[in-house]
Amino acid sequence: MSSGAPTRPRVLTTAAEIFHAVEALRSAGQTVGLVPTMGALHAGHLSLVEAAGRDCDRTVVTIFVNPTQFGPGEDLARYPRDLEADLEVLAQTGVDLVFAPAAEEIYRPGHSTFVLPPDVAQPLEGRCRPGHFQGVATVVLKLLLLAPAHAAYFGEKDFQQLLVMRRMVADLNVPTAVRGCPIVRDADGLAMSSRNAYLTPAERQRALAIPRCLELAADRYRAGQRDSAAIAAGMRQVLADAGLDRIDYVALADAETLAEATQLGPSSVALVAAHVGATRLIDNRRLG
Amino acid sequence: MSSGAPTRPRVLTTAAEIFHAVEALRSAGQTVGLVPTMGALHAGHLSLVEAAGRDCDRTVVTIFVNPTQFGPGEDLARYPRDLEADLEVLAQTGVDLVFAPAAEEIYRPGHSTFVLPPDVAQPLEGRCRPGHFQGVATVVLKLLLLAPAHAAYFGEKDFQQLLVMRRMVADLNVPTAVRGCPIVRDADGLAMSSRNAYLTPAERQRALAIPRCLELAADRYRAGQRDSAAIAAGMRQVLADAGLDRIDYVALADAETLAEATQLGPSSVALVAAHVGATRLIDNRRLG
Repeated sequence: MSSGAPTRPRVLTTAAEIFHAVEALRSAGQTVGLVPTMGALHAGHLSLVEAAGRDCDRTVVTIFVNPTQFGPGEDLARYPRDLEADLEVLAQTGVDLVFAPAAEEIYRPGHSTFVLPPDVAQPLEGRCRPGHFQGVATVVLKLLLLAPAHAAYFGEKDFQQLLVMRRMVADLNVPTAVRGCPIVRDADGLAMSSRNAYLTPAERQRALAIPRCLELAADRYRAGQRDSAAIAAGMRQVLADAGLDRIDYVALADAETLAEATQLGPSSVALVAAHVGATRLIDNRRLG
Repeated sequence: MSSGAPTRPRVLTTAAEIFHAVEALRSAGQTVGLVPTMGALHAGHLSLVEAAGRDCDRTVVTIFVNPTQFGPGEDLARYPRDLEADLEVLAQTGVDLVFAPAAEEIYRPGHSTFVLPPDVAQPLEGRCRPGHFQGVATVVLKLLLLAPAHAAYFGEKDFQQLLVMRRMVADLNVPTAVRGCPIVRDADGLAMSSRNAYLTPAERQRALAIPRCLELAADRYRAGQRDSAAIAAGMRQVLADAGLDRIDYVALADAETLAEATQLGPSSVALVAAHVGATRLIDNRRLG
């Protein structure tokens, strides 16, 4: 953090510019942290920027609403985009470089190579959003090659995404450390998400059942309950009581593999995806 | 080339070793050329090593019989492997480093991320060898990340592979130049291939119909013939006359996209895949 007047980060928009800028930092002996985002920055993103700032000499934030990770009928068109506001937010931080390319810069005519994501991409989000992780894995690999950072930072809110990234980076020998950062919650308990902006005040109230059902899972686990079916039923009841009837999944799974757990243990995680009005939200909580 | 006694290259077998060795070269300001091979080195490979040596300060050769690019029933088990002989051959060249990992070093337990290769991988070899280019693209991407070279060298004998590599590297923003090198032929015209070792003397005689039919295509093109169906029929006749009746394809295509050409032009290429006994051979020739 600089004291005094906030300094806007340098904004680059072409592949060649970001590559050469990051290479120049590396050649000068600086370590580089990468925070890939889709913009609409909130306190969750800023916690990633802070973590990168603690670990690395320089921080690069990418802002790119990646079309290939949205399915047909999803919210690509209405996803919030406000680069100016994002740059204002980032001016308060120590971010050095922002890479904010147009879609055509990332996907050139004829682009047809993709990353087939690892097995851990199959369940949960993978089942609900076919092709989503293929799009995420492809764009993150591209960003890691365009901005070859020492470490890249992902929020644990997108828990499965973090596992997919870890596995992809290991499987493909990408020389970047993947670091997960804890979920940041608003005062009312809702996990920070750019999609929270879609919620009406009434929807937001109902959405609070999502963190509440995860808290119930953690409470029951702490109280000694190990039967995942019983806990899942309790979680679903919390969601139903709040009128959330479009539940994509309520899952109790192993936090490494996402294999469904029948008996819970210290490496279990509870995960939820549910629709609140027209908005799809996800959240999770480690139990152990 | 060093004068005096040949020097064996340094052989590394782990991912960490090769990565740090190549990084050290780069940090010292050296340019690095990569020649990915499956071993069983012949004059074709040596032409790649020579090209790398002309362009780059240091040359890395990888020797890895990549299991994921072989289909069931293909020749993975009998593919020729003789690291000692390969190192003898390389001792005559200026190669600095050889990376010769075990399969378990490249594909760790749980490995499940792959590259979905670009559209140009679909026809021809892609149709005859499902999954082949997925395996090739995956291992080459891994090798390019493990041994981050300035340029990587591929033979034009595997013409479609070269196109797949070019497109993959561009699509995924891999910071390595892909360079293609001309086919090297034996005195009898047969394109150099490690698989030629499988041929009996009689099979080798029959195999010469493959370069002969490509020569016919080039001759007819030079004589003004532009109708690809007519030329393909002539090529098939040459193969049939030699008793080669298991032809995977005889194709006349655009050399950038591999789209089938009905009217030939300066960017056309003739490609053949045919079986000679138990051996499958491929070859090609630019017409323009």
